[in-house]
Amino acid sequence: MALTVFWGSGSPFSWRVLLALEHKRLDYVSERLHFDKQEHQSPHMLKLNPRGRVPVVKDNDYVVFESLAVLYYLDLKYPDPPIFGLNPEEAGVIMRVICEFQAYAEPALMNIIDAVFTAHVEGRFDELSDAMHVVGREARTIEGRLSKESWIVGQNYSAADMVIFPVIQLLRRALSKPAAVELGARFLPMERNYPALARWIGRIESLPGYDKTYPPHWREADRT
Amino acid sequence: MALTVFWGSGSPFSWRVLLALEHKRLDYVSERLHFDKQEHQSPHMLKLNPRGRVPVVKDNDYVVFESLAVLYYLDLKYPDPPIFGLNPEEAGVIMRVICEFQAYAEPALMNIIDAVFTAHVEGRFDELSDAMHVVGREARTIEGRLSKESWIVGQNYSAADMVIFPVIQLLRRALSKPAAVELGARFLPMERNYPALARWIGRIESLPGYDKTYPPHWREADRT
Repeated sequence: MALTVFWGSGSPFSWRVLLALEHKRLDYVSERLHFDKQEHQSPHMLKLNPRGRVPVVKDNDYVVFESLAVLYYLDLKYPDPPIFGLNPEEAGVIMRVICEFQAYAEPALMNIIDAVFTAHVEGRFDELSDAMHVVGREARTIEGRLSKESWIVGQNYSAADMVIFPVIQLLRRALSKPAAVELGARFLPMERNYPALARWIGRIESLPGYDKTYPPHWREADRT
Repeated sequence: MALTVFWGSGSPFSWRVLLALEHKRLDYVSERLHFDKQEHQSPHMLKLNPRGRVPVVKDNDYVVFESLAVLYYLDLKYPDPPIFGLNPEEAGVIMRVICEFQAYAEPALMNIIDAVFTAHVEGRFDELSDAMHVVGREARTIEGRLSKESWIVGQNYSAADMVIFPVIQLLRRALSKPAAVELGARFLPMERNYPALARWIGRIESLPGYDKTYPPHWREADRT
């Protein structure tokens, strides 16, 4: 098939692209790579992306990676439904919100997530508390947006939702681990602390095709 | 006038937007804010961008900030000449190169630049040497691109050039300070170490309108 996505289970960057592919109802070949087998670093993958990172999308002979660039390419190539807004003004806000998230929230979020999943919370509690403080501040801004609208920017599900959602899901999962209870005390349960964000998560979880994007190794773990 | 840009001298993020405005030959009001007087944190500016950062562009009643989002908005609103490529494939590469620069090069670059301009090189030499190592690796990749083409992506001056150029100029200026001589020994002179990058800098410096984008406080310092 023409369109192939190479991705890893639990990679929030991969998840963004799967959400976009499902929302656009594109036919694609799903190539899941197993991080524990270093499949994302295989000679074949390093030829596609020398950094050995996923997601990578191959569309016939064309290759694109870095999740935001993939979303951008997919939207230009397959514009219906649009995920970067209906006019330049809305597009500018979507890109601005994405840039703000990546610059001001994502580094703190990924610090916390990495620390929890690699079991390095205890020795870094002060640093991670500071990171949670940053996350809380950024989350309140998004909560404010979502208390007025169903989606992060404007009337439609957009690339801004797709960029932010997987990282929030990953954070929720991290903070629900026993080692992170204290760290997450002001964040979870989201229904109480961030009710608009919690409803927004539910809205995305009920979108058609969502189940196909859910990290399969989480599903396996949830079953056991 | 309809289009106003709020910017600061020496802010590489501001410089990106000035380059785009000049390249698109747009009429705009230039509102230079003085960082030393905290003008970017004035009540008026905080109303436009609550983070108090520049650049901010106001187009009639519409406000956009975060440099990449501003470039993106300007290109959608004023598409001629395009700065995000001529087709989805080229656009995807431009965005991918920008994302890679921001994710893998910019943090190290800004660390070095901040350390030199705040005179904190000595106590952090090992850390900054590591950052220069990262910068060197990323610069070699860009050097490779520019040894084959005149611009970073494809046949035309694009948003990728506009995003990367100001940070490289700032790095050159930082590394030419006496305190940074050792740090910059493998980077400067660029004519010897990165000849294609040096030629690309010269190409941008000779573009029409470039002089209007050059940081005025650098010009003042250069004169004395």
